[in-house]
Amino acid sequence: MAEENKSSLDALTSLCKRRGFIYHSSEIYGGMPGFWDYGPLGCELKNNVKQAWWQFTVRGREDVVGLDATIIMHPKIWKASGHLDTFADPMTMCRDCKKLMRADQIADIYAEQKKKPQPKAAGADFFCPYCGGELTEPKPFNLMFKTVVGPIDDPSNVAYLRPETAQAIFAQFQNVTDTSRQRVPYGIAQMGKSFRNEVTPRNYTFRSREFEQMELEFFIRPDEAVELQYGRVVTLADKPDLDGPVQDDWGWEVWHKYWVEQRKKFLNAVGLPTERFVEYWQKPDELAHYARACVDIEYDFPFGRQELEGIAARSDFDLSQHQKFSGESQAVFDDPLKQACKKLTDAQKAAFVDKVRKDLAARGKDPAAAEKFCAGLFDGKYVPHVIEPSAGVDRLMLALLCEAYEEQKIAGEKGGEDVRTVLHFNPKVAPVKAAVFPLVRKDPAQEKMAREIFEKLRRKVNCMWDVSGQIGRRYRRQDEAGTPWCITVDGQSVQDGTFTVRDRDSMEQKRMSYGEFLAMMDEALEF
Amino acid sequence: MAEENKSSLDALTSLCKRRGFIYHSSEIYGGMPGFWDYGPLGCELKNNVKQAWWQFTVRGREDVVGLDATIIMHPKIWKASGHLDTFADPMTMCRDCKKLMRADQIADIYAEQKKKPQPKAAGADFFCPYCGGELTEPKPFNLMFKTVVGPIDDPSNVAYLRPETAQAIFAQFQNVTDTSRQRVPYGIAQMGKSFRNEVTPRNYTFRSREFEQMELEFFIRPDEAVELQYGRVVTLADKPDLDGPVQDDWGWEVWHKYWVEQRKKFLNAVGLPTERFVEYWQKPDELAHYARACVDIEYDFPFGRQELEGIAARSDFDLSQHQKFSGESQAVFDDPLKQACKKLTDAQKAAFVDKVRKDLAARGKDPAAAEKFCAGLFDGKYVPHVIEPSAGVDRLMLALLCEAYEEQKIAGEKGGEDVRTVLHFNPKVAPVKAAVFPLVRKDPAQEKMAREIFEKLRRKVNCMWDVSGQIGRRYRRQDEAGTPWCITVDGQSVQDGTFTVRDRDSMEQKRMSYGEFLAMMDEALEF
Repeated sequence: MAEENKSSLDALTSLCKRRGFIYHSSEIYGGMPGFWDYGPLGCELKNNVKQAWWQFTVRGREDVVGLDATIIMHPKIWKASGHLDTFADPMTMCRDCKKLMRADQIADIYAEQKKKPQPKAAGADFFCPYCGGELTEPKPFNLMFKTVVGPIDDPSNVAYLRPETAQAIFAQFQNVTDTSRQRVPYGIAQMGKSFRNEVTPRNYTFRSREFEQMELEFFIRPDEAVELQYGRVVTLADKPDLDGPVQDDWGWEVWHKYWVEQRKKFLNAVGLPTERFVEYWQKPDELAHYARACVDIEYDFPFGRQELEGIAARSDFDLSQHQKFSGESQAVFDDPLKQACKKLTDAQKAAFVDKVRKDLAARGKDPAAAEKFCAGLFDGKYVPHVIEPSAGVDRLMLALLCEAYEEQKIAGEKGGEDVRTVLHFNPKVAPVKAAVFPLVRKDPAQEKMAREIFEKLRRKVNCMWDVSGQIGRRYRRQDEAGTPWCITVDGQSVQDGTFTVRDRDSMEQKRMSYGEFLAMMDEALEF
Repeated sequence: MAEENKSSLDALTSLCKRRGFIYHSSEIYGGMPGFWDYGPLGCELKNNVKQAWWQFTVRGREDVVGLDATIIMHPKIWKASGHLDTFADPMTMCRDCKKLMRADQIADIYAEQKKKPQPKAAGADFFCPYCGGELTEPKPFNLMFKTVVGPIDDPSNVAYLRPETAQAIFAQFQNVTDTSRQRVPYGIAQMGKSFRNEVTPRNYTFRSREFEQMELEFFIRPDEAVELQYGRVVTLADKPDLDGPVQDDWGWEVWHKYWVEQRKKFLNAVGLPTERFVEYWQKPDELAHYARACVDIEYDFPFGRQELEGIAARSDFDLSQHQKFSGESQAVFDDPLKQACKKLTDAQKAAFVDKVRKDLAARGKDPAAAEKFCAGLFDGKYVPHVIEPSAGVDRLMLALLCEAYEEQKIAGEKGGEDVRTVLHFNPKVAPVKAAVFPLVRKDPAQEKMAREIFEKLRRKVNCMWDVSGQIGRRYRRQDEAGTPWCITVDGQSVQDGTFTVRDRDSMEQKRMSYGEFLAMMDEALEF
């Protein structure tokens, strides 16, 4: 990490501790590496980020519903998802100093020590970067936390803490479809804790062992079903309008790009302008075997450019795996599709099957699957495909904190230069929306009016009351908390009912009535 | 369970599944006993219950702040709290049929089977209620889920999933005190998942292995500090006003009663009238050794009267334990107390120590502790005492569901009797606040106006749109979801901008404008 970046992260970390955003977990017992707690301001920020996501993704749409599933689920879910077999890091141990390390990070460790890597041979193996000793053969270490359910400590009762929230959505897909009056295309969203037993948690709260996710699985028709029903599949080449209402004839490629754009809109809405992040489209050889496209949205953290969230087109891989492992059909029945197919002649059907066969072959899949897949489609049945926008609450919070943090040089009260520390949060996520002060603490009329405003306002939003110290100090205290507006009741207030509203970013004060303030605030907070 | 109660629970369970409130976790893999998922309506209900609690307990008060700590914490926390040593159920196994069971539930199992218990001897031991075989000696089985943190599977890396959220609050007490500008008396609140490896999870979602809590630890001065500073300690005998602002001279007894009353107000506000629950004051011999009082708020579930939440006066037990086990002082410094004590003569101090010595002896504590405790007080230092209102999200939701559920006999459309299934949720927690319909689906003017209302309203609250079927069917669908208001746009609407609002409970329709509806709704939703 460059010195400048390191010091800006240190300054942010120190503010986060000092103002009650983030603490080490279990600090009085020496802490737990990879575990972080959110203090009073941190948990308000977190609640706001989550509520913003929920409003934007679920309540504000008609085609997404919510789910809140358990962290401990049936272990077969992780067999079906592939986590049990492949969610692992390669671990190696030094035979001399007994240090454990990730085999894929040895070159990095050498780099951190500013030493030249010492490869053992021509291959990927190295000598120990700490003592030069010989390393063991790398072995996969599964990153899922294991536990035992029920009183009998037996392999048959082993279960795992979920390493992602997504799988619960797939496992409950049929229940939600049966009970929510939604039809594909539609999505299921979930927020909640996930756990990964990272070997080397690092970069502050960025890579933690316990973290929170906000995931959406948006289920769509396979392109073949769209084509059969509408006679066409809209692709990006057709330049569809992604800002207007969603369309039934969109293919997966359009849906995927649509969700990339939606996610960018969300990030803009909570305070990350588009020019502050990078949209990285994974190259074909970087994609998982089942994925058709994946976009990473990356942010320049002080410790380097890192993924903030990902939007993946995962084909029908997930539901098909659960169908295979549970023996329960994950197909949906689409009557309009069946009706459309009824109008096809046998020759048209045969031509369609032939086309699908060729498509499968071209994508390196088994062409023999075409027959059964098409027979299902003609009957109105298919396993939906999925677009997955997956975001981390903690890393988004960290990006918002980095983005908001500024040490601003301003003119000092007694002349000279002063430094103002300010968190320029978007009001939608700011932990405290407004602070209310009487200008003169000991003026009973000012205090009474300020209290009345405070009592009214805090039934609507999170507010703070502060009467301690000079008004300038009270403003600075709120700047550090990221409070967008400070309401000050002064002599004139008592006369005409108006008060001053000091803007955190411009530091300008405007006089307004309670009604005017509410209207301004409501507009700033609405999605 | 009485037949009538069983059938009412069965009907509720069936509605909860059918309408997407509650599903079995991992159902397609055969389920996981003791784990439940919330579907689209269930997770909205849950979010509303949690947000109501947060608004009532944290944002609506100046003397409570929030915390959001990790589920996996340092294992020493559970040593300090006593969970590692004593949070266990006595387990026994049948030597013949190998069944495991809780030794303290054997009489219940006999009762369920309507058989007479077969005690082995005069003591508490029984023969196996299933096969009559001999049972092993009961052994304690710890209810905490165990896991291992980091790549080395070694006893030193064992950690636990928290069995309660409270301990994180104690562990972070000093951090929060240092960074939140709060002074005792003040509280720290937390909501989040907890885990208990119950041997026999049962009663639907009531006793689950994974559940969510809402806990407040409200830290108060020891009575001795109150007495030194104010010259008096207000007790319940003084008939303090518990509805007015909190007072500095309240003793623990008043604070405890105050929080019992606050919790009852909260339950009233979310839809449980006082006459529907029972306030049970634990008897002295039922209290934990450190507790001074504990009130259980109990509700008559279909499966019997069960604890909904508890409000305990826990003395300084928790912080003192963490002080002892972490070696970090958990005392606070109270300057006004120190200043008050400065005015005392040596004789007054000696008399005070003497009084404390006698109090300790009378309460069965070590009188020798008086000297050190009083020396701290005279210096303005003490370990705060705590009042703990602790509620379970899931059991409150279940109580609200039971309370709301009604199968109502009404006049049928074609004469005769009809049954209307309705969930009478308080609007504050109702998953959907309003549904919007055009009366005649194919009337473009009605549809356009209804859409406009829907689009405006859903930026504020969770709404539903429904155009399918007769208006009566649409009302019934919302009744089952517990939606308080159905807005219908009809012919007159298009003329004068008003619409009908159908009340879920009275089934009456009132015509109103958008502004009138908003005002009515806002009033019903505000705390």
